[in-house]
Amino acid sequence: MDIATNGADVKRYPIEVLRQFCESVFRHFDVPAEDAQQAAAVLSAADRRGIDSHGVARLKTYFDMLRHGRINPQPTIEVVRETPSTATVDGDNGLGLVVGPRANALAMEKAEAVGSGWVSVRNTNHYGIAGYYVLQALERDLIGMAMTNSTKLVAPHRGAERMLGTNPIAMAFPGKTEPPVVIDLATSCVAYGKVEIKRREQAQMPYGWAIDRDGHPTQDPDAMIDGGAQLPLGSDEDRSGHKGYCLAAMVDILTCVLSGANWGPFAPPFALRQEIPEESVGKGIGHFFGAWQIEGFRDPEEFKAQIDKWVQTFRATKPVPGAEEVLIPGDPERHAEARRQNEGVPVLGPVVEDLERIVEYTGIPLATD
Amino acid sequence: MDIATNGADVKRYPIEVLRQFCESVFRHFDVPAEDAQQAAAVLSAADRRGIDSHGVARLKTYFDMLRHGRINPQPTIEVVRETPSTATVDGDNGLGLVVGPRANALAMEKAEAVGSGWVSVRNTNHYGIAGYYVLQALERDLIGMAMTNSTKLVAPHRGAERMLGTNPIAMAFPGKTEPPVVIDLATSCVAYGKVEIKRREQAQMPYGWAIDRDGHPTQDPDAMIDGGAQLPLGSDEDRSGHKGYCLAAMVDILTCVLSGANWGPFAPPFALRQEIPEESVGKGIGHFFGAWQIEGFRDPEEFKAQIDKWVQTFRATKPVPGAEEVLIPGDPERHAEARRQNEGVPVLGPVVEDLERIVEYTGIPLATD
Repeated sequence: MDIATNGADVKRYPIEVLRQFCESVFRHFDVPAEDAQQAAAVLSAADRRGIDSHGVARLKTYFDMLRHGRINPQPTIEVVRETPSTATVDGDNGLGLVVGPRANALAMEKAEAVGSGWVSVRNTNHYGIAGYYVLQALERDLIGMAMTNSTKLVAPHRGAERMLGTNPIAMAFPGKTEPPVVIDLATSCVAYGKVEIKRREQAQMPYGWAIDRDGHPTQDPDAMIDGGAQLPLGSDEDRSGHKGYCLAAMVDILTCVLSGANWGPFAPPFALRQEIPEESVGKGIGHFFGAWQIEGFRDPEEFKAQIDKWVQTFRATKPVPGAEEVLIPGDPERHAEARRQNEGVPVLGPVVEDLERIVEYTGIPLATD
Repeated sequence: MDIATNGADVKRYPIEVLRQFCESVFRHFDVPAEDAQQAAAVLSAADRRGIDSHGVARLKTYFDMLRHGRINPQPTIEVVRETPSTATVDGDNGLGLVVGPRANALAMEKAEAVGSGWVSVRNTNHYGIAGYYVLQALERDLIGMAMTNSTKLVAPHRGAERMLGTNPIAMAFPGKTEPPVVIDLATSCVAYGKVEIKRREQAQMPYGWAIDRDGHPTQDPDAMIDGGAQLPLGSDEDRSGHKGYCLAAMVDILTCVLSGANWGPFAPPFALRQEIPEESVGKGIGHFFGAWQIEGFRDPEEFKAQIDKWVQTFRATKPVPGAEEVLIPGDPERHAEARRQNEGVPVLGPVVEDLERIVEYTGIPLATD
């Protein structure tokens, strides 16, 4: 989510300054030049599109993981199984920001060759925003899909403990003159970052976001963070929390059970301070990428013209009282991007401190205006 | 949902009696023998699995549509575009219960040939339960996926009018000794049938299911039915109603924009009494089927053993206070099936009356014990 509107203590940096800094930090840890550039591009996409929890705010974690040898800076990424339209990739414990784009490219190549391509990935790490991968597919005129699992935070429906990650799903469809439809959503009720914001604001959360350590519904962010759990999309019994659980399960199985990664509660954490689960049921975490050739179904120009009409039709929906208009999936991120091109990226005080610690450790300068 | 526990006025029929009756009714309208059998098998799967809104309760609508020539009983189903792993099928306005299984079979054949198969379908009609199609994939040791659009009932997030169907997503994964994980969910907050049940009970709906004709949240089922709309999964602003909207949009585009069917508010209704939209943007409604070869990613025995462990792990989740246990996707339908094999299918009074009208019109007997 976009922290810019939050009134918190923030410092602004041009997008390119942050991107360059990230690239240099990856280079510092002997990530090859091309990979460092790729990894920085993924983080930068999050900063540019207003997904502040997944951009430069995460650099400190990548830094910690690389510094402690928990991520392999020079992985040998291998295809371990393959058909014309599917493959499984082993990321050799490399940066998800490097393994992800490589696997996604393979899915796209297969789609260009035989109509669709599907790549599941094991032995990888946090891959940034799911939206990045489907935007890559748009550039090749493909419909893209991306999923990943992540550290446990979410309870299954009727469960009182963390068993699943926020397991996002992304998909994008190109328009002709209208912007593309870009879907990127966590299968939890809300992103974890929203719980953290409520805590910083010392505010209550809306009902339905979380349970406490005993499994009771809670609106206190600390009660969720201190051994509680987030709820899946749908929240509770009355509003179909079982559906968000099903969607998270779908992502968990496609990304991990299919590839041979650590699913559910066994996913290794993406943070030094969190415990690594005692039992391992696979290698690293897992991703899943897909791409379809539009031409394999319909004339691409016809398809894009219909997407334009779809966008126009849904934008013209009569809004509910008090709402300005119905948005198209991808609108909020496009709006954030337009603002940030001009105003730079707002970075929260604690994140600025993290970056300053990295400057101190590596000697890499972080230019500010 | 399962009406058996609802205390309403019901009559019980053996599953096979209902299936046979459906088959004979389709035959009565000159549906070819094999197609009639197929169509009845799909309806029967809903009755067997406890999805009462999609089984014999819908026979009257198929009957009406066939009787008024609104559905083609002998369609020429054609592949209009194809790559090794994708295709678009035109259903020639046939029964979705016949077109759907044919297109799904094509997706499965492609998966067996090149690792995955994807078939979008236009010019088709209501296809029964999405779950049927992914169970078919399980029988061939594939991972299946199925989606369809449907008549508008759901408002997009922040919208005050019906623009999308309840657009379901289904997916299934085989286990080894444990039952399969079978996901089948509407992308609306709840199935429309739940609103109807509340009306029959003259009860209020929980908050978050619906808005009235002015776009205000309502808990009165009549206010939803009388020009209001259902809300997408997630319900409202605080609980991420935009995510359910995104998922419904994804289904709408894959099933219709990709195939050339009528998307969003342009979907023709599956009922004689509802108005056909003035504008048409394609042919009929749309489906989307997919299948993946497990072997294209991982050794199938290894995969199934991990699914077993996944099922056991999630079932062992500590439940919230008051809940018996955490269910696995597919459990409720399996439980219903076990009950109904013994006790027969409970059919509601008004549905029994519908069936009696069909008996009267066609002269086909409906055997009862």
